Amino acid sequence: MRERIGLRRQPCSELEMLGVVQSIQEEKQDAGFGEMGGDYRLARELSDLQQLRTLYKPQLPPCLQGTTVRVEFGDATIAADPSAKVPDAQFITDHPAVRVGVVFCGRQSPGGHNVIWGLFDSLKVHNPKSVLLGFLGGSEGLFAQKTLEISDEILATYKNQGGYDLLGRTKDQIRTTEQVNAALNACTTLKLDALVIIGGVTSNTDAARLAQIFAERKCLTKVVGIPVTLNGDLKNHFVETSVGFDTICKVNSQLISNVCTDALSAEKYYYFIRLMGRKASQVALECTLQSHPNMVILAEEVDASKLTLFDITKKLCDAVQARAEQDKYHGVVLLPEGLIESIPESLCICNNLAPLQEIHGLLRKGVSADNISGQLSPWASALFEFLPPFIRNQLLLHPESDDSAQLSQIETEKLLAHLVEIEMNKRQEEGTYKGKKFNAICHFFGYQARGSLPSKFDCDYAYVLGHIGYHIIAAGLNGYMATVNNLKNPVNKWRCGAAPITAMMTVRRYGNNPSILRQPALRPATVDLKGKAYDLLRQNATKFLMDDVYRNPGPLQFEGAGAGADARPVILCVEDQDYMGRIKELQEYLEKVRSIVKPWLLLPTFSR
Amino acid sequence: MRERIGLRRQPCSELEMLGVVQSIQEEKQDAGFGEMGGDYRLARELSDLQQLRTLYKPQLPPCLQGTTVRVEFGDATIAADPSAKVPDAQFITDHPAVRVGVVFCGRQSPGGHNVIWGLFDSLKVHNPKSVLLGFLGGSEGLFAQKTLEISDEILATYKNQGGYDLLGRTKDQIRTTEQVNAALNACTTLKLDALVIIGGVTSNTDAARLAQIFAERKCLTKVVGIPVTLNGDLKNHFVETSVGFDTICKVNSQLISNVCTDALSAEKYYYFIRLMGRKASQVALECTLQSHPNMVILAEEVDASKLTLFDITKKLCDAVQARAEQDKYHGVVLLPEGLIESIPESLCICNNLAPLQEIHGLLRKGVSADNISGQLSPWASALFEFLPPFIRNQLLLHPESDDSAQLSQIETEKLLAHLVEIEMNKRQEEGTYKGKKFNAICHFFGYQARGSLPSKFDCDYAYVLGHIGYHIIAAGLNGYMATVNNLKNPVNKWRCGAAPITAMMTVRRYGNNPSILRQPALRPATVDLKGKAYDLLRQNATKFLMDDVYRNPGPLQFEGAGAGADARPVILCVEDQDYMGRIKELQEYLEKVRSIVKPWLLLPTFSR
Repeated sequence: MRERIGLRRQPCSELEMLGVVQSIQEEKQDAGFGEMGGDYRLARELSDLQQLRTLYKPQLPPCLQGTTVRVEFGDATIAADPSAKVPDAQFITDHPAVRVGVVFCGRQSPGGHNVIWGLFDSLKVHNPKSVLLGFLGGSEGLFAQKTLEISDEILATYKNQGGYDLLGRTKDQIRTTEQVNAALNACTTLKLDALVIIGGVTSNTDAARLAQIFAERKCLTKVVGIPVTLNGDLKNHFVETSVGFDTICKVNSQLISNVCTDALSAEKYYYFIRLMGRKASQVALECTLQSHPNMVILAEEVDASKLTLFDITKKLCDAVQARAEQDKYHGVVLLPEGLIESIPESLCICNNLAPLQEIHGLLRKGVSADNISGQLSPWASALFEFLPPFIRNQLLLHPESDDSAQLSQIETEKLLAHLVEIEMNKRQEEGTYKGKKFNAICHFFGYQARGSLPSKFDCDYAYVLGHIGYHIIAAGLNGYMATVNNLKNPVNKWRCGAAPITAMMTVRRYGNNPSILRQPALRPATVDLKGKAYDLLRQNATKFLMDDVYRNPGPLQFEGAGAGADARPVILCVEDQDYMGRIKELQEYLEKVRSIVKPWLLLPTFSR
Repeated sequence: MRERIGLRRQPCSELEMLGVVQSIQEEKQDAGFGEMGGDYRLARELSDLQQLRTLYKPQLPPCLQGTTVRVEFGDATIAADPSAKVPDAQFITDHPAVRVGVVFCGRQSPGGHNVIWGLFDSLKVHNPKSVLLGFLGGSEGLFAQKTLEISDEILATYKNQGGYDLLGRTKDQIRTTEQVNAALNACTTLKLDALVIIGGVTSNTDAARLAQIFAERKCLTKVVGIPVTLNGDLKNHFVETSVGFDTICKVNSQLISNVCTDALSAEKYYYFIRLMGRKASQVALECTLQSHPNMVILAEEVDASKLTLFDITKKLCDAVQARAEQDKYHGVVLLPEGLIESIPESLCICNNLAPLQEIHGLLRKGVSADNISGQLSPWASALFEFLPPFIRNQLLLHPESDDSAQLSQIETEKLLAHLVEIEMNKRQEEGTYKGKKFNAICHFFGYQARGSLPSKFDCDYAYVLGHIGYHIIAAGLNGYMATVNNLKNPVNKWRCGAAPITAMMTVRRYGNNPSILRQPALRPATVDLKGKAYDLLRQNATKFLMDDVYRNPGPLQFEGAGAGADARPVILCVEDQDYMGRIKELQEYLEKVRSIVKPWLLLPTFSR
């Protein structure tokens, strides 16, 4: 039985909770599993704003306030709805001391530290003897059993701060037999009741598999997933958005808007900006809706319309030309990081070839970079040779953990700017374009946003998810992900719950051999081209392109609703406008999903 | 007689001033010189924060409050000191209507719009019939007499907003005979009493020359300069800092700090970040003092120590190696935009050659890019051939308006990262380096900060400078720059004044022919290697390099002293710690300067 829980709490004052936490501080450092002392990484120099932020205490929704939480168990296919009659509900009043491990996996996302803080507070408020061990250096630290016991003192300078530097992170994977064995060994040796994995699509897929294997091997450690990824692609009917996405979009939108203002001031450059966000174009879409740049090319559009590199170039050139006719020689174009993967695939789709996969396959076989081109299939080779040398070199870099290319290293923005320049020069020579010379400046926005102080929303969301993480553990659930619904509304209206990660997974067939099924996995949620957010973009596309209605959300503010401190991602608000209707649609959809997915998910670990 | 004025005002309430401004709105659009209608560029979509910022009213120091301003005339070599006995002071009570033109020149800097706002408010409060014409499209708009009459309605959505997009800007220069004639013609045709030039080092040099020429030709238009440049290099004994520098450093520091957090979280990359800021390294120094990255290489250090590219590479490699010995494989290195100019010069300094100048000389003579190398002197050619192809191509780009290279287009950060990688690999092969492979990611931070919403400080400073601009005009002065002193203190302690631009100019000899003297000009204020700010950097250099004491000033806040909204640049505060002592030193220094500079500045236009 796969279940979904809803959490409700008897309210108690925050002061009482703080009182409890206070008393715990005196007992800190009693377990002593950490190889580092209590002063580990405490020597931090915080700015005024950073210090002010450490004092911010995230709100908790009513269900998590107080010490008694009611857990409602529903069918996995029914979302927690306060008005629904829940068949099975209980108050969990017994809170034995637990030992919990927590690990950062994957790209660091603003808010990650607050998950640990929330988890820690919830652990300690329910039983001061509970212990939280952080693994130092991500999954590598997990395998090597390098831990740091979390204390309020250690957390002090990391509350509401960006980055993953409290613990660090290394590789993203917990997947190979060796890795899984090392993780199991660590959890057993450290006598962990639970392992909390903070990460995105890949890491939560690993969490689900780990949960299954742990259960099969009678390991007592439960595995819990927390949706934290700046990509915003861990999103499904249970998960409205992931921690970090709001901050990343706000920071990037500020920078994009600054560039728009710059473009409009000097009126001589086109800026091509590539945005971090992996395969899905969620970040690019959200930033477009916040900043109103002239154009965005979503990977999902390219996939759907089977656009070739030449099509995209033509589209861009036509836009440049249309603007030139209005005497405009500036503009801002956004490109998602994942676009490059969509382009060659669509070029070769007729032959069902994917040059990137071919290239990586050859590299793995030991073919040297110089000889790659000759060994590719004719289509892939032709494409490869057409690309400028700097892009060719970037394609030859080793693939990332999830077998996709090192997307952040491939300068698609330069490739497209280069191709547009060639085409515009050609049009000028042919006399079909009579405007000024096309000038482009290229940017990649990723690393400079990823370490940002988290937005108020991400601080709250992460902290609440941390609390829920504890309640999943207290309820004895394995392979569940913490979820919060109704996120577009104020925190006191948030609905907390949890869902089995497997209920969010899908199964795909191998591209070349449809008879082989891949393992079930979470898939990055791509932009829904029939969704409301994309529709909003389409409605405004011409205005954005021609009228320079640039909008600057400005630097992230932490105080004042009027200053946008409480703003939510546009996508979240737009898509949720019809929330109850969506629940209904969800139920119908899940009915279908259940019939399709269930046979692949006979995992004994997901019952209680 | 070159004079310096100090301004004092009888206080009056802000409400009264607003009342006056209100009544002006009704009289708008009566002159009708603008070729655009009243709805020009009014269709703007502002975010919540942008709207909130339009409502912010910058403070005025006491001397500018009320309607009667006392103007004190001092010797150009004596700074305005309220305690000093001033030989010549007067109340200017007669405020005939004036027609003033204003133009943006050079790189857009946050705060530029507020100069226009301050100028407009001051013009109108003293005589509602006065007219302010903005030139559309920078100096090109000036030459072509494309104007927009400024009204409160037009200003409404640009108050406290970034960019130069209210008017735009194009070329930076007003220098050739043709350009000067066009400017003179515009000022005469439009019957301007004054032309206000908003810009940096180059533009204010042009302003001073224009003032001289206008006076010589009996043109009645007075020229006024306002120090606005993100580079922070328009700085001297009269000018403490320039508008835009504070914002740029805060925005860049936020991004640098985010990258530092990122580096510390993943512990696998070195980030090489190049910062916009032209020849001087002021932005790089300020950002280092705010963010504490591991290293910064100032162009001034390279110049002073005559470091070659090989020396810098070695220095960086030694740092990487020292950190690797502490098991640290991440780091953040800042590089100023102007570094590239310092490197080749120092390489060839023994032969007194400057490859960049040589290259540009050859390009101007029509030598094709392919044949450049063969025509360079042996030293320059050897250096040129040593550089990787992508840098070579960038060096061949056309020079900027002030004859330096297109610095923003030369990727010094990639050049250095490339050379460090080669050297580290070599050390690894030789066995002298035993750590992990060196991995670098490169960034250029410039355009994404330049269009930012201006900081509270820049909003206030620019607005006050705009007001002073009017009083310079009312006092009938020509070739003066508006100045504010005591900027590190709150606005009510600021001291307002003006100084002849020529008093800030220096004369240099041509490099190759010491007998030829260049025209007097403002020079970019480079980082003073004997100054307090640089000393602070040196004191902390080892700690910054080894201990990762990263500090994140966070996103620009507009409210709350605790959030850093009122923070001033570190350089400004450090250098001004001994302000009165500095005044004394200044007087002694100016005594020397006067004896040297005066003979070259017998400009009849600077008397009153």
